[in-house]
Amino acid sequence: MSPTDPPFNSIAIVGLGLIGGSIALAVRERWPASRLAGVDTPSVLAHAMGSAAIDRAFESVAALPAVDLIVLAAPVNQNIELLKQLASNRPDKVVITDVGGTKRAIVDAARGLPLSATFVGGHPLSGAERGGFGFARPDLFAGRPWIFTPAGAPPPGAGDSRDDAVARLSQFVTGLGATPTTMDADQHDRLMAFVSHLPQLTASALMEVVGRATPPGGIRMGGRGLADTTRLASSPASVWRDICATNADAIGDALDLMIACLTEMRDNLHRGDTIDTIFDEAAKWRAELMKGRE
Amino acid sequence: MSPTDPPFNSIAIVGLGLIGGSIALAVRERWPASRLAGVDTPSVLAHAMGSAAIDRAFESVAALPAVDLIVLAAPVNQNIELLKQLASNRPDKVVITDVGGTKRAIVDAARGLPLSATFVGGHPLSGAERGGFGFARPDLFAGRPWIFTPAGAPPPGAGDSRDDAVARLSQFVTGLGATPTTMDADQHDRLMAFVSHLPQLTASALMEVVGRATPPGGIRMGGRGLADTTRLASSPASVWRDICATNADAIGDALDLMIACLTEMRDNLHRGDTIDTIFDEAAKWRAELMKGRE
Repeated sequence: MSPTDPPFNSIAIVGLGLIGGSIALAVRERWPASRLAGVDTPSVLAHAMGSAAIDRAFESVAALPAVDLIVLAAPVNQNIELLKQLASNRPDKVVITDVGGTKRAIVDAARGLPLSATFVGGHPLSGAERGGFGFARPDLFAGRPWIFTPAGAPPPGAGDSRDDAVARLSQFVTGLGATPTTMDADQHDRLMAFVSHLPQLTASALMEVVGRATPPGGIRMGGRGLADTTRLASSPASVWRDICATNADAIGDALDLMIACLTEMRDNLHRGDTIDTIFDEAAKWRAELMKGRE
Repeated sequence: MSPTDPPFNSIAIVGLGLIGGSIALAVRERWPASRLAGVDTPSVLAHAMGSAAIDRAFESVAALPAVDLIVLAAPVNQNIELLKQLASNRPDKVVITDVGGTKRAIVDAARGLPLSATFVGGHPLSGAERGGFGFARPDLFAGRPWIFTPAGAPPPGAGDSRDDAVARLSQFVTGLGATPTTMDADQHDRLMAFVSHLPQLTASALMEVVGRATPPGGIRMGGRGLADTTRLASSPASVWRDICATNADAIGDALDLMIACLTEMRDNLHRGDTIDTIFDEAAKWRAELMKGRE
């Protein structure tokens, strides 16, 4: 395989939402000769075929032809169910990855399955305001990290094929504009509980509280601050209910710390020093977060 | 006074931060012949004089010459102190307004002062990521509401002058691009507790918790979601300690509802229906908030 060859010639993407749809569009740009199969509902498939994001459409993974790579891009628990179906139906040597926001649950599930395929958990750190194929775009992954979680004891004899799969997947996501990196599934889930899951739950809770408590029309008095802080509140519940369920321990810890910080503010609104300390710390972390981005 | 005449020919702005500095720059654009005096520390005054935002610089309100309008643009409690100084030192018939984020405290303070001037509380709903004259810009108020809170029994004989002051102030902020509106100080403070103060405290708490809990470098794995949700976390503590102290009851209620919502999520992370309900409600309010903005 030369460096310019595509790491996978035929790819199936299961779930053509924001992430799955964007992978299809990015593959089309990078490797126009690749064969792309999509699995989703008939209306989404029609949309994806109509915009030439895929060239073959299927309503179930059981109907898929042989491919080099299967990307599971449905919500986390659906991906786990799909993996079980693939384990019982596909004896061929395919590489399977997923793009779910939590990694322990699917990595653990894969370990317990009689997979002849090689599974490597993955997570592109790319989000957008709204989900669905209609918001997919080929540059969604540009400049963003793409985490793989291959750690843990491989099944007997699978070591070499897994290392090879990680190398090919890394080449694949590099071609999509992302920067591949690896970490343990545990480490991934704990980190994401803070840098991704807590911000999402906070934004949704804030929007819910503000909407419910303000008189009709009052919400429109909110400025850019409210708009930015609640941007994530359009995220689809279908994705997040699975993330919450499969990372409940780490998210619970993050929510406890958030609730404790808000309670400290609440009990010290008249004490300027408490507000000063939290604001000064927050401004320092904000500067660290934005380093090199602005 | 014709509609094209400036409502105020000479203006003093006390506090040349983001808001005060932006008022100066916007006045310069709209009414270039107006005389603009600024009150601040020597370094800020030098910056403002250097960029021609003001044409006269003073280090205290006691030194100010006679003007038509005084805009108090320091943090809330400093504005109250400045108003007390003005009550004892300035017998002239000037209009005084402020731009603080809470209105009950200063409106109550003004009511108790032997002011010969006419005071009308004000609040432009314009914010930006960072405070300070360096971030001031003339279009900060374009298309944004500017709330005045003239309600309550006027001092004896002050009724006419106050109505006239509200009319002139409304013309003034319209000239700066804003849309003037009036409401009770109580109503203002309760509404702002939800659409402005709670989002600010939430963003700062989130940034503080995420920064403290993630390993070194981990915060950089945060995506656009974390960046947007914490944008307000650069806000200056000096402004917010006074807002918290002067709106503690309403902010306390807002924080209680936020803490309750996060606690409900925390206790039901495995229950998809709880997450679904909060996310679906939040997405509905988010759509309402963004109506006509995108």
